[in-house]
Amino acid sequence: MRRIRIIGIGAGHPDQVTIEAVRALRSVDYFITADKADKPGGDQLLAARQALLERHLDDIPPVVAVRDPERDRDPDDYDQAVVDWHDARAEAYEQAILGHGEGDVGFLVWGDPAFYDSTIRIVEKVLARGRVEAEWDVIPGISSLQLLAARHRIVLHDIGQPIVVTTGRRLREALASGAENILVMLNSTIDLEGFEEWTIWWGANLGTPDERLVAGRVTEVAVDVLTTRIEVKTTVGWIMDVYLLRKKP
Amino acid sequence: MRRIRIIGIGAGHPDQVTIEAVRALRSVDYFITADKADKPGGDQLLAARQALLERHLDDIPPVVAVRDPERDRDPDDYDQAVVDWHDARAEAYEQAILGHGEGDVGFLVWGDPAFYDSTIRIVEKVLARGRVEAEWDVIPGISSLQLLAARHRIVLHDIGQPIVVTTGRRLREALASGAENILVMLNSTIDLEGFEEWTIWWGANLGTPDERLVAGRVTEVAVDVLTTRIEVKTTVGWIMDVYLLRKKP
Repeated sequence: MRRIRIIGIGAGHPDQVTIEAVRALRSVDYFITADKADKPGGDQLLAARQALLERHLDDIPPVVAVRDPERDRDPDDYDQAVVDWHDARAEAYEQAILGHGEGDVGFLVWGDPAFYDSTIRIVEKVLARGRVEAEWDVIPGISSLQLLAARHRIVLHDIGQPIVVTTGRRLREALASGAENILVMLNSTIDLEGFEEWTIWWGANLGTPDERLVAGRVTEVAVDVLTTRIEVKTTVGWIMDVYLLRKKP
Repeated sequence: MRRIRIIGIGAGHPDQVTIEAVRALRSVDYFITADKADKPGGDQLLAARQALLERHLDDIPPVVAVRDPERDRDPDDYDQAVVDWHDARAEAYEQAILGHGEGDVGFLVWGDPAFYDSTIRIVEKVLARGRVEAEWDVIPGISSLQLLAARHRIVLHDIGQPIVVTTGRRLREALASGAENILVMLNSTIDLEGFEEWTIWWGANLGTPDERLVAGRVTEVAVDVLTTRIEVKTTVGWIMDVYLLRKKP
């Protein structure tokens, strides 16, 4: 039986993969990745992935780049647009898998497939379509939210308190629900209005040589966060950032 | 300058450590751990840790077991009791470090030091006391909540939706705040009343040979979860479990 392995490869540094993930990387016949070479920073992500594979594999099997279908970035119905996009990706991945016979395939996922990643849902869709038969498993990886905590040397919550993990898009909802400790991923922009008295721990491009960190009271460091974002985008060419907001000083 | 390294060693399986963590394990002169040999399952955790060290180190440096101070398990003021307990531990760790000269020390932390672990706060307290000088860093590890997701092959949230991570003690507060996707750690007991129509993904002793998984609608699997908890406690001698509750079917 063909195996599909969804492998979390960490936030960027080649040493931040588990030994289980390295074994999984070595066990498959080829990899499938989303081809994002034409996106900002896509070539650098490609190079980082290549460096990671070269570090851990003597012989790198083929890496099949599946071009992402077009996605409506400003849809009327966000959830439906994501579902449609997943369907289109499932069809593209099905084609890629069927084109490679019975070999085992590894999906390379930055961070951890458990957080804000679509690979698991797409593999389920590929299997539900019925043309690809496979056993499949998931290998966890270090997420950027964990690296944020490690770099700032913090626990992600006050003693015994909850954490809300959410997206930049839904930050206001978390605030309205009464959350006082909010971890925010997937930010196209950052709007800290209303959080002036909170503390922020922010990190960009974590695990890469271009990592940036800022921490402090929002009112004191918000400008630093926003200018560093622009600086990273300009000098590095791409930015992926994550931050924790906590109400208690 | 002495180094203190707080090293996340994953949820239990020796392969679920990162290469960065293995390098950190190899870089220190001795380890400090909380001595829990007299707790339920303590001897098995000790054996698991020993197996992990033997797997990754040719020469295992001394492992200094610092006995945990007594802790009030049913205090009037929970937060203050935890703070007092951390102070007592800081003093005990300070003694252990000062007793070992200038060598680099590694603190071994199951899972990830970023989630419901006190080591970072205690090391900060040790340094704040002023008798121990050190540089210090944190190495992230795979948390049981990530292994829960990987084993059930799920993303920890619906598309673009938030996750509340909390403790069994505060589960009712999360429900009252309107959360519909709740990840629960640190459970002495599990009470699923009011969640009958939700879906649960539950896992115990993840990463160990005695791993157990249950998933389904709460009304259909709650008895299975509760009896499996008892079965694990009885046959294995200890249980550490974590679960995700989601309202949407």
